[in-house]
Amino acid sequence: MKFSVTVTLKKNVLDPQGKVVENTLKNLGMLNLKSIRQGKFFEIEIEEKNEEVAKKKVNEMCIKLLVNLIIEDYKIDIVK
Amino acid sequence: MKFSVTVTLKKNVLDPQGKVVENTLKNLGMLNLKSIRQGKFFEIEIEEKNEEVAKKKVNEMCIKLLVNLIIEDYKIDIVK
Repeated sequence: MKFSVTVTLKKNVLDPQGKVVENTLKNLGMLNLKSIRQGKFFEIEIEEKNEEVAKKKVNEMCIKLLVNLIIEDYKIDIVK
Repeated sequence: MKFSVTVTLKKNVLDPQGKVVENTLKNLGMLNLKSIRQGKFFEIEIEEKNEEVAKKKVNEMCIKLLVNLIIEDYKIDIVK
């Protein structure tokens, strides 16, 4: 069973890396760019047939290692 | 108009960072984890009303800066 996890910085957390990308793109002539924020993405494959159980496992991975809950939000999706 | 861009390593490209995460999760007891690969994620906001034109702009950003086309794939989605 495959999942995708998207990790983004919370709204009020500064994103210096994203800011650099934003400035670089503006310097490249992309003047109608309003904002860009960078996050992380994980493709996770699990050996587990039960969707509920698998999703719980992925959630556990996020909490234990992948996501810093103080400054980041995350979203888990099933990949069909 | 808001877009999300997901950048992933191509299938046959090694992902050392993902491998480290995989091993760490296995050491944490996640034994049914089969594989995990890490990618990048961007949230892009553009001042442009025409969807076609906006998507083209985002695509241009990907090609010019955000994506290394030799080793990475990317996917652009509209965020409603």
